[in-house]
Amino acid sequence: MLGKVALEEAFALPRLHEKTSWWASLFAVDPQKHTAEMTDIADLRIAHMDRHGVGFTVLSYTAPGVQDVSDPREARDLAVEINDHVAEAVRRYPHRFGAFATLSMHNPQDAIAELTRCVKTHNFLGALVNDTQRSGPRGQDSIFYDSPEWDPFWESLTDLDVPFYLHPRNPTGSLYRDLWADRHWLIGPPLSFAHGVSLHLLGMVTNGVFDRHPKLQLILGHLGEHIPFDLWRINHWFEDVKKPLGLDCKRTIREYFRDNIWITTSGHFSTSTLNYCIAEVGAHRILFSIDYPFESFADACEWYDGLQLNLADKENMARGNAKSLLKLGEYKDCNA
Amino acid sequence: MLGKVALEEAFALPRLHEKTSWWASLFAVDPQKHTAEMTDIADLRIAHMDRHGVGFTVLSYTAPGVQDVSDPREARDLAVEINDHVAEAVRRYPHRFGAFATLSMHNPQDAIAELTRCVKTHNFLGALVNDTQRSGPRGQDSIFYDSPEWDPFWESLTDLDVPFYLHPRNPTGSLYRDLWADRHWLIGPPLSFAHGVSLHLLGMVTNGVFDRHPKLQLILGHLGEHIPFDLWRINHWFEDVKKPLGLDCKRTIREYFRDNIWITTSGHFSTSTLNYCIAEVGAHRILFSIDYPFESFADACEWYDGLQLNLADKENMARGNAKSLLKLGEYKDCNA
Amino acid sequence: MLGKVALEEAFALPRLHEKTSWWASLFAVDPQKHTAEMTDIADLRIAHMDRHGVGFTVLSYTAPGVQDVSDPREARDLAVEINDHVAEAVRRYPHRFGAFATLSMHNPQDAIAELTRCVKTHNFLGALVNDTQRSGPRGQDSIFYDSPEWDPFWESLTDLDVPFYLHPRNPTGSLYRDLWADRHWLIGPPLSFAHGVSLHLLGMVTNGVFDRHPKLQLILGHLGEHIPFDLWRINHWFEDVKKPLGLDCKRTIREYFRDNIWITTSGHFSTSTLNYCIAEVGAHRILFSIDYPFESFADACEWYDGLQLNLADKENMARGNAKSLLKLGEYKDCNA
Amino acid sequence: MLGKVALEEAFALPRLHEKTSWWASLFAVDPQKHTAEMTDIADLRIAHMDRHGVGFTVLSYTAPGVQDVSDPREARDLAVEINDHVAEAVRRYPHRFGAFATLSMHNPQDAIAELTRCVKTHNFLGALVNDTQRSGPRGQDSIFYDSPEWDPFWESLTDLDVPFYLHPRNPTGSLYRDLWADRHWLIGPPLSFAHGVSLHLLGMVTNGVFDRHPKLQLILGHLGEHIPFDLWRINHWFEDVKKPLGLDCKRTIREYFRDNIWITTSGHFSTSTLNYCIAEVGAHRILFSIDYPFESFADACEWYDGLQLNLADKENMARGNAKSLLKLGEYKDCNA
Repeated sequence: MLGKVALEEAFALPRLHEKTSWWASLFAVDPQKHTAEMTDIADLRIAHMDRHGVGFTVLSYTAPGVQDVSDPREARDLAVEINDHVAEAVRRYPHRFGAFATLSMHNPQDAIAELTRCVKTHNFLGALVNDTQRSGPRGQDSIFYDSPEWDPFWESLTDLDVPFYLHPRNPTGSLYRDLWADRHWLIGPPLSFAHGVSLHLLGMVTNGVFDRHPKLQLILGHLGEHIPFDLWRINHWFEDVKKPLGLDCKRTIREYFRDNIWITTSGHFSTSTLNYCIAEVGAHRILFSIDYPFESFADACEWYDGLQLNLADKENMARGNAKSLLKLGEYKDCNA
Repeated sequence: MLGKVALEEAFALPRLHEKTSWWASLFAVDPQKHTAEMTDIADLRIAHMDRHGVGFTVLSYTAPGVQDVSDPREARDLAVEINDHVAEAVRRYPHRFGAFATLSMHNPQDAIAELTRCVKTHNFLGALVNDTQRSGPRGQDSIFYDSPEWDPFWESLTDLDVPFYLHPRNPTGSLYRDLWADRHWLIGPPLSFAHGVSLHLLGMVTNGVFDRHPKLQLILGHLGEHIPFDLWRINHWFEDVKKPLGLDCKRTIREYFRDNIWITTSGHFSTSTLNYCIAEVGAHRILFSIDYPFESFADACEWYDGLQLNLADKENMARGNAKSLLKLGEYKDCNA
Repeated sequence: MLGKVALEEAFALPRLHEKTSWWASLFAVDPQKHTAEMTDIADLRIAHMDRHGVGFTVLSYTAPGVQDVSDPREARDLAVEINDHVAEAVRRYPHRFGAFATLSMHNPQDAIAELTRCVKTHNFLGALVNDTQRSGPRGQDSIFYDSPEWDPFWESLTDLDVPFYLHPRNPTGSLYRDLWADRHWLIGPPLSFAHGVSLHLLGMVTNGVFDRHPKLQLILGHLGEHIPFDLWRINHWFEDVKKPLGLDCKRTIREYFRDNIWITTSGHFSTSTLNYCIAEVGAHRILFSIDYPFESFADACEWYDGLQLNLADKENMARGNAKSLLKLGEYKDCNA
Repeated sequence: MLGKVALEEAFALPRLHEKTSWWASLFAVDPQKHTAEMTDIADLRIAHMDRHGVGFTVLSYTAPGVQDVSDPREARDLAVEINDHVAEAVRRYPHRFGAFATLSMHNPQDAIAELTRCVKTHNFLGALVNDTQRSGPRGQDSIFYDSPEWDPFWESLTDLDVPFYLHPRNPTGSLYRDLWADRHWLIGPPLSFAHGVSLHLLGMVTNGVFDRHPKLQLILGHLGEHIPFDLWRINHWFEDVKKPLGLDCKRTIREYFRDNIWITTSGHFSTSTLNYCIAEVGAHRILFSIDYPFESFADACEWYDGLQLNLADKENMARGNAKSLLKLGEYKDCNA
């Protein structure tokens, strides 16, 4: 299937090669290959894309990235450097690459300024943030974005009419020490990623972010970080118990999933789970993605291309939904 | 459908009526009704059972129960009091009620002693523990059971040939303060319960508990606390990445789900999700349950009785699997 | 759920009360009630609609109707009488009722003339035909519409831009005698209906009707008369075997289902089967319907309203798709 | 996955090579290869089995076979010749091959005699019959086996405790002329096979065969020849309409599917459809099969081996269920 669009595809700065390499040694079976694929933007990537029918990739900085930088000024500067770096690739290959802005999330003002610059100057397609922002003098604290002080940030996103990708990052601080240190094999895709993002997303729901910003479009990877599995249960408790007790949400969880939330297939190439999500979330809200270079183009694309599924949904999830959400217009649907 | 067996059904001590009542005010729409249903063992319950075709209920103490008592001696004494209280009901209605032992989990020795007493003296059918044991002088610490020091406890369970129900409890300590306090509507069924139990269960998997105790039978409520949704992803990362990097598990996550883990329908009455779990987990490992009095008999039973499903799986999930797991023999399958 | 649209809803001429009554005695548990509901157009029906949240009903003549009349002139006259009768109801309740034209299918000319009259004069929304047209001096023959001589008819449908509902009828002639007489309990919904329609529809596919009329929109009841179950198998044999051997179809079976074919829920109120069809056929091609008075409003609507499903697909299948296909515009979405 | 058992695997007599070759030309893309694979019993087949992890194959004569022979004596003799031919292969490779008896179905006596001989003398594992028996002087008639005169045959099957595989064959006689001649691309797997077998099977149900022979075990290929798709609808009409009107069935359609009917995956390698059948029919009644040489080992086995599914059901459908149904005991589960 040609012309697929992929939205959770990571890169790292070449000047941080050593750090990327060390990081890769923690979870990559072939750290050298991983580091090369991560540091490259165009060459290896376009070859993969051509081989596997991916027409367009939205690039974003690998986790934890700037969300791991507890000094606000350092975080801000790093975000600018990253965005300017990837902007160059987008400029060179406008039919093959777009980008999500990297943002320092120490305060809404910094985030708004850099988001606006990226969208207006670089034509970026939105922002991707790696869960909470590490902060505090010893880097022990975490900033969530579900409190009212972040309203200006969400407002700028909807004003710019671009989506926000809520990507996971690793646990830190007391969270790491109390829960994950003794269960470290569960850090990352097996469990901790979904814990972080599902909490943050549902925090945004219950703290009213989507009520105050009904046009906000938020993307989750990995088929929704466990939440689609529990839509029935969440809906039942919100509607039948929590709202009578005071939860102040204007709409139901299924309505937020209809109007505000998208999920991608990144790192979750299961036919049964995708079919289940088509029923629970709806194909109109599902987007193909890979999670390269943590996952391979071959695994993602051979699975997706081989899916036996109604063709309209298959085509929409592969590219139609993304083109509409990201306003890609008539980018070339082929690999040429 | 008559003769259903239910396994996650809570009660509280009558002498703690005031505490139960206060607790109920936090999450029950009708706290008075909830308190009455929770404190009652036989009268209200048997009426519900008869009305909705539940032949047999396995009783267990409501969360957080003894797992919230940070003083070891106090915890041990409370467990004994609870178990002796429910034993009386089991003795009076042996064809309608069984029980899971309540245990202090401050140390394996206390847990083993009380488990053994309950199974041998009271004919209890296993144990139900509410996630980690709160401990420490200020109740700030949490004990997990996935380290080797707990091997004697797991060994006593397999020696006694009874299952262990890993039930959730609320977050405490830094976990509460750092994550849940500002998102308190998510505490309990909407999210925190699944976070706690999924971490604990997968911690047991990756720390080798099931490898050292291959006969251990562990039950999860709420259709598996999110884990069935990610079996593909967990399996992929364990087998393709984590094991090459050193994770030392003898078997695959799907093998543990085939041989060691059961899931119940407690609090999750969704036809789509059940069908998905039948494919991913298998009907031979699914058990009907309600989660009374947090959920109603009517919601659970009218949903289950109305399921359009192959009859063998429907009957096995309703009672056949439970009778086999709990060795219920020829308890009366009717409501008379 | 308010404002549902229903598309396979039958009526009979009051002057044929006796025949309707005799017919009802063959398959209705309460023939008197059935006859009353069938003969009534507005009064009983609007009461049902209001009670069960059906905003708009597309009326059509009950099977076998004109397709059972082997004399061409008699068939033509009966079609006119039926259409004029129902047109009156549509005129009186334009916000609640539309109609599919009844057609004599003895030859394309008669069918075209009456279709055109109904759409242009009466604002009918399309046509509903009960499978093959009985013909021949002793009524032993059956006319299929998948040969090129029927091209003018399909052309007139696409010119008028209205859909065609391919509804079943009972087996007759040698088909009845050789296959169904000794298995008469299978006549109708249990089996013969799906046999008739699936053959006719796939005959249209393999004989090129949709290739010659790529804009033709055809509706099947009963979740697709078995065909969705075999899309994989049909696709495999068409693409891998039959086309290499000479089958001359421009597109794949999945493409016809994407572009030309709709299925309704009439008489098939199964959550598992609907979920399966959402994956295989796509929610964008599924339409709520009842099959009243063979099925009850209560069975259909309580099932549909209670479905736990993503909200966009649920709303589109209930009414959005129908409004778009039938160009209903702003009919009133409520029951007032 | 090693040790799979396959149950719908065809062969033809070498002396009929010319006829097999002509037949192959009608539907095989490579008739020569097809003829070779069909005529071979052991050499090509064992190579395929070893390459694709099939431990054991149950052989049966290709359709239409003896069911196409309208002369009773000729049919009887041909059945004996076929059975003796395949018995030789079974004797040579008892760990790799079993057989279903080929039977002339002109009358119960002939069928019983040959079935008994095959089971008792040759250790055959049951019988496979290709739908109705062609009969009559001009071969225009068809014999169904759902009338009481066939009770002695069903009784002999249950006495011998072996299953009956109801396999399709092509339409003949008026059925061919009136329905299929003008839609000949639908003959075989795309449609006519399912029409024939679904009618025959449901005829057996409604004419009481399973009520009179409650131990009868009947196998359907191709994931159940459309019937699983309509279990809800069939059940609804049988229970709510047909039984009140006089249908005399002791049990529900879901009960016959629980107790008497098996389905195989032959020729239907769709993950969505299999998942759907696991919910509707139950994994305990599903058997892996290929339909070789009409389908390839590679298509069937690569699909099945790659299924992401709970392991117990996957292993039972691959071999456990078959070993239990066919009493295969400890045949070697490997390919050695």
